[in-house]
Amino acid sequence: MKNKKTAVAAVSGGMDSCVAAAYSLIDYDTAFLHVNYGQKTEERELKAFNDIADFFGISKRLVIDYSHFSVMGGSSLTDKSMGVRKADLENKSIPDSYVPFRNANILSACVSWAEVLGAEAVFIGAVYEDSSGYPDCRPEFFSAFEKMADLGTKPETVIKIKAPIIHYSKKQIVEKGIELGAPLHLTWSCYQEQEEACGICDSCALRLRGFKQAGIEDPIKYKIRPEYK
Amino acid sequence: MKNKKTAVAAVSGGMDSCVAAAYSLIDYDTAFLHVNYGQKTEERELKAFNDIADFFGISKRLVIDYSHFSVMGGSSLTDKSMGVRKADLENKSIPDSYVPFRNANILSACVSWAEVLGAEAVFIGAVYEDSSGYPDCRPEFFSAFEKMADLGTKPETVIKIKAPIIHYSKKQIVEKGIELGAPLHLTWSCYQEQEEACGICDSCALRLRGFKQAGIEDPIKYKIRPEYK
Repeated sequence: MKNKKTAVAAVSGGMDSCVAAAYSLIDYDTAFLHVNYGQKTEERELKAFNDIADFFGISKRLVIDYSHFSVMGGSSLTDKSMGVRKADLENKSIPDSYVPFRNANILSACVSWAEVLGAEAVFIGAVYEDSSGYPDCRPEFFSAFEKMADLGTKPETVIKIKAPIIHYSKKQIVEKGIELGAPLHLTWSCYQEQEEACGICDSCALRLRGFKQAGIEDPIKYKIRPEYK
Repeated sequence: MKNKKTAVAAVSGGMDSCVAAAYSLIDYDTAFLHVNYGQKTEERELKAFNDIADFFGISKRLVIDYSHFSVMGGSSLTDKSMGVRKADLENKSIPDSYVPFRNANILSACVSWAEVLGAEAVFIGAVYEDSSGYPDCRPEFFSAFEKMADLGTKPETVIKIKAPIIHYSKKQIVEKGIELGAPLHLTWSCYQEQEEACGICDSCALRLRGFKQAGIEDPIKYKIRPEYK
């Protein structure tokens, strides 16, 4: 049997990165990296990460601590003095849940680990089209990151940055997740609750709308389950 | 009095970043960021960082923990099973003290903090010409990083990546440090010792040669002080 190539996947515990990791597993032996960054739902997301990794039988896991993000502040996800706002899916400005330059920090750790492992790709579950407007989710950001990573690593290190669902809608992510056998029932998306998802933050709203558009019931529990259009 | 612009400087505790920080302080109110990454001399470098920050009267300081680098391994600076090798200043290959993609990780944290602070520049004491051959010290890496950071942050965020001593020799760094009043006597460069510098690792060798070429005696203590040409 031919040895598979190796990849590192950034796995937050949410639905998007779970589906991106399922993509990675088609072609690569995949190591899972998770970042705690002082977000309010850190513990619940870490549980989801481990549940997903167990489901896929992943032995190489790395959990890293970026708690300095909550010291820096500047985001409603990490700053305890800011509330997580109610979703407004019509608002096109950058929401206050934006964590400054988070994806560059996560990808940098992934590339470091990938270089040590001899991996050829890093997978991230970023979504641009039907998403949040975060600048570090733009396709051109990932292209620029890949170029920078090529210059900043050894000449023999060549690592592709793969964002396989970047142009997907949430509906398509749900459908693709089911097609690939990704354990969506183990994922966690809510920004503010850890027992039952709140149903009203941006992340819950986008997720619920995606399931609704796919005509599938979201298998996780919600406190309240509004109908989003 | 006109308010100064703000910058973030990555300050390791070594001579190069101390001089780069002195550059930053000419034009910017400067916040100092230090990274512990599980390197063998972590404690001593942190002391040097705080000594330098005290010297310059810096109130905004952030110390962050990248101890996952020592879990990842792949570098003689963090991997306890690898020895730090004796200097060979003629060898032009990438030395095993290379910490995979370290500067991208450090700069990413700096840019995150800079975005929160509204800072306009990030300073790093990278040196290319008379240095180590690390790929993440190349000028083209920093240009690519700046472009990537511009795409990955908010539209109103514009952060310059400044590596003011990148084309300096160690001799020039010593001379410039003295000219700018940088506290070289408080800096720590040795890769393996924490009481007296070893005098024989790559970093000690480059430093000692720089002082010698500048015709100045290095003010810190060494176990042994070989003559490097």
